[in-house]
Amino acid sequence: MYEGAIQDLIDELGRLPGIGPKSAQRLAFHVLSADPTDIKRLAASLTRVKELVRFCTTCFNVAEADLCRICRDPRRVDDLLCVVEEPKDVVAIERTNEFRGRYHILGGAINPLEGIGPDNLRIRELMIRLGAGTVKELIIATDPNTEGEATATYLALLVKPMGITVSRLASGLPVGGDLEYADEITLGRAFEGRRTV
Amino acid sequence: MYEGAIQDLIDELGRLPGIGPKSAQRLAFHVLSADPTDIKRLAASLTRVKELVRFCTTCFNVAEADLCRICRDPRRVDDLLCVVEEPKDVVAIERTNEFRGRYHILGGAINPLEGIGPDNLRIRELMIRLGAGTVKELIIATDPNTEGEATATYLALLVKPMGITVSRLASGLPVGGDLEYADEITLGRAFEGRRTV
Repeated sequence: MYEGAIQDLIDELGRLPGIGPKSAQRLAFHVLSADPTDIKRLAASLTRVKELVRFCTTCFNVAEADLCRICRDPRRVDDLLCVVEEPKDVVAIERTNEFRGRYHILGGAINPLEGIGPDNLRIRELMIRLGAGTVKELIIATDPNTEGEATATYLALLVKPMGITVSRLASGLPVGGDLEYADEITLGRAFEGRRTV
Repeated sequence: MYEGAIQDLIDELGRLPGIGPKSAQRLAFHVLSADPTDIKRLAASLTRVKELVRFCTTCFNVAEADLCRICRDPRRVDDLLCVVEEPKDVVAIERTNEFRGRYHILGGAINPLEGIGPDNLRIRELMIRLGAGTVKELIIATDPNTEGEATATYLALLVKPMGITVSRLASGLPVGGDLEYADEITLGRAFEGRRTV
């Protein structure tokens, strides 16, 4: 509907996930009226991500070198390993300042409906890391949904015979939440995992 | 929270209108896993919009030459001029295939609360075009809201003394709509503008 370059940009933006035709048009007109240096910076950072960012060869987190920031850090302990689905889970856990071990990013969770089995995840690479013998405890921090639970169960079965402690993040009531609005499965888990005070 | 380039991209995307921090992160990870040629094309089309797209010197629509596609088209009639707020309004009207005249894009509507007065719109340029004497009818197609109505009233007062027919798009029930759900102002307008059949 528009001439050349602006229509091309609307089409390109509309291909991004979660950006519909109206948003694409709105963004394209924003680009048109924005400061040229801002847009140049945005275009450059798109290209740079593709050029510079790769995956850590040890934990498969996003990295700009062979090893990611966390794998390079000598202050982290080597005997605690936390398994997560995606790099954004690492960011969420780092924000808590509670964990001082290393990570392993699976790249997803087991999901038979979408054809994702153990072979599509970095489970073989995890087993090789655990085989080195330095890890004493494996914390499974996959999402608390069907796929995440299935992946956790699968990993626990695989890792326990190696004599490594396997733990799973606690399920229960979210802090600041309201008991009345908790779903029955979460509330059930909160009872199960109750602690003496 | 992330290393270098990916965090830069999240920051840049988060600066776009309507893109929150979670969407920016999701888009950045999409970029990371997308085909490099797709991202190169997106980055190039961002830059090209800033380089190539300008505003038509006659009607102020987006254009890639001095004149936009519509102003260049010799098949359009010159005595009908339609005033709209934004280039996207031109696209909406063109989609109807009902209008064969030319356009004039104001670049917004009068909005005293946001400090947009007649001097901030291309009204002076409109008056110069009308002064040439070829336009017989001016169709005011500003949005049917307070700002658009105020702009329409202002333009009508300015243009009528020049002996040019001034018209406004009809207000009424949207086609496919439900009478029961029409707001009272729209329904009142529909009564006002009723036509004998």
